Amino acid sequence: MIGSSAIRLARAYLAAVAEPPAPALATFVEELGPIDAAAQVRRGEVPEPVAKETSARREWDRGAAHLRAAEAIGARLLIPEDEDWPTAPFLSFAMCGHAHLATPLALWARGPARLVELTERSVAIVGARAATMYGKHVANSIGFGVAELGCTVVSGAAYGIDGAAHRGALAAGGRTVAFLAGGLDAPYPLGHTTLFRRMVETGVLVSEWPVGTVPQRHRFLSRNRLIAAVSAGTVVVEAAGRSGTSKTAKDAGELGRALMAVPGPITSAMSVGTHELIRKENAQLVTRLEDVLEAVGRIGDDLAPRLKADTTARDRLDPLARQVLDAFPARRAASPEQIALEAAVSLPDVLRMLPSLEIDGFVARRDDGWRLCPGGGAKRR
Amino acid sequence: MIGSSAIRLARAYLAAVAEPPAPALATFVEELGPIDAAAQVRRGEVPEPVAKETSARREWDRGAAHLRAAEAIGARLLIPEDEDWPTAPFLSFAMCGHAHLATPLALWARGPARLVELTERSVAIVGARAATMYGKHVANSIGFGVAELGCTVVSGAAYGIDGAAHRGALAAGGRTVAFLAGGLDAPYPLGHTTLFRRMVETGVLVSEWPVGTVPQRHRFLSRNRLIAAVSAGTVVVEAAGRSGTSKTAKDAGELGRALMAVPGPITSAMSVGTHELIRKENAQLVTRLEDVLEAVGRIGDDLAPRLKADTTARDRLDPLARQVLDAFPARRAASPEQIALEAAVSLPDVLRMLPSLEIDGFVARRDDGWRLCPGGGAKRR
Repeated sequence: MIGSSAIRLARAYLAAVAEPPAPALATFVEELGPIDAAAQVRRGEVPEPVAKETSARREWDRGAAHLRAAEAIGARLLIPEDEDWPTAPFLSFAMCGHAHLATPLALWARGPARLVELTERSVAIVGARAATMYGKHVANSIGFGVAELGCTVVSGAAYGIDGAAHRGALAAGGRTVAFLAGGLDAPYPLGHTTLFRRMVETGVLVSEWPVGTVPQRHRFLSRNRLIAAVSAGTVVVEAAGRSGTSKTAKDAGELGRALMAVPGPITSAMSVGTHELIRKENAQLVTRLEDVLEAVGRIGDDLAPRLKADTTARDRLDPLARQVLDAFPARRAASPEQIALEAAVSLPDVLRMLPSLEIDGFVARRDDGWRLCPGGGAKRR
Repeated sequence: MIGSSAIRLARAYLAAVAEPPAPALATFVEELGPIDAAAQVRRGEVPEPVAKETSARREWDRGAAHLRAAEAIGARLLIPEDEDWPTAPFLSFAMCGHAHLATPLALWARGPARLVELTERSVAIVGARAATMYGKHVANSIGFGVAELGCTVVSGAAYGIDGAAHRGALAAGGRTVAFLAGGLDAPYPLGHTTLFRRMVETGVLVSEWPVGTVPQRHRFLSRNRLIAAVSAGTVVVEAAGRSGTSKTAKDAGELGRALMAVPGPITSAMSVGTHELIRKENAQLVTRLEDVLEAVGRIGDDLAPRLKADTTARDRLDPLARQVLDAFPARRAASPEQIALEAAVSLPDVLRMLPSLEIDGFVARRDDGWRLCPGGGAKRR
């Protein structure tokens, strides 16, 4: 127990001593273990790359204070040594080897649910803050649909798409996880305070940054790698061209996760980014919940309710029968000879087709010849 | 001359004796030549597959009547023996080998322009009749942009997307070709009569069917293969799911042409088909004219640079020069001092930048100061 709390204390110090992502420090901690790594960082006895990341804050040891402050607001520090740490999802950070995709040293969490369980079957839904009504509607309904199937909705709790996705999940009675770019004492944005209160009842708020940290632009970008990593796939609903959202959506691809994008009107600035992702980053174009489930694969296999191709009666006809049917005048009766001439189908073939077309309800024999059936126009669409 | 008119007469008979597409007849005519082929078809001395296509109408010889009726409305019969026949585009029919993609036996044409020239550099723009305002707006502006670059817009003259594309081309002073599914005496739909009148002033109306033929469902589908064949690429702007448009858009792919689709809101039934084309048929998602030109390749190589030049000339400037350029008033002259203040760039730097901006054609020195060049606004796009 003392050992465990010493590790947690060391991790609390390490989590704040460098600004995430800190790839050199992450590797250093992995090699030495958190207690020895923390001691050496504190003394400045570290390799040059680790020094670069840690020298500015190494004497600023606020680990214990951060843990106390977290406890006061009902938050906790999750560390890789915990059972509740999402080990498997974060393995991909090491595997992909990009510096900006460094594994986190610890995570602050608030909410009763277990993060590892919540993220086991989860889909990320992210997008622009300045979303349109269309984008928010779509994010909300995908969030609803994903949650209704028992999957967790992961997002960043921002205004616009993120908020709509979280709300959709909650409306379905589902659970949702938000990764924040600042301290859990004042979840950002303030306008989502009621949303945050509802989210932590069944889900979790997560942050790499200790209490008292204000969100900054680069923190939003760093945070997004965690959203991508814990989810089976990331759906980008709306994004401006060359936006943070589309840049970091690529993380999902680099981490081997499904990258999906929702199209929109080409006249909307908020769909420029999603169209770019489809054109240039091989994002899958998704239009329905089924598309999302198909793209995320493993969890999709369990959940995707296969859509049955619905074919019309006319489609099932053979080409010759269709040709005969199309040759019928719209509002008059016709003789088999007239139909043969119009259809360019031989008379014997026409005579062979008519009875089966009659049985299928397309045409009927009348005193003045053959006619399309009253409902035939609709059937032929 | 007699030989030539005999060939034309034979082709007029052959064009009506089978309902297009007639793959067996097309091959038969290619092997025997039109005059011998027509004689044998008339006598019924043909192989079984040709008989199937021609037996119903073989005694119905209206070739001469069709030619006279065409002449009466200012139309003509285009045949493969003519210089104006689009030989190269139709070669792909033989190469792809699908029965439903049979080469036409002749084409009725109305309008002064030469079809082979018009289609040399052309893009097809097609889509749903029941198009939305969004779809029609997009079709219109792509049509306008394509025509403005000197390319022909090819479409089917239907209500909705087709009509909007033709109108866009005409608005740009460009030329446009319509392939119809019925006789040229009464171009369908009637509501486009004024549009047809404007189109034939500089463009051409084309049909595989003789005067007096009413359009039928299967004729629209057959007709679409010609649109795909003569164009370097086909852009589908809006299409319902499982629609005729999306089915026949695949012709473009099978014929080795670029297949493109414009995305739209996933909440719109009229974008279901275009999204399907992107997801399942490898259609290229296009959002801008540049995307279309990039996709059509060969003709794009000629045209894309013109568009790109506008953006890249400015993009090639160094940031300071761009800052100076952007500070110019749109329609007035300005002194270097005024520009320096507006740009927040020092006066020596502005004086250093102006000569090179002048050499690149962005700005010019006038009696009243420095001004943007007449084309400068476009260049700065």
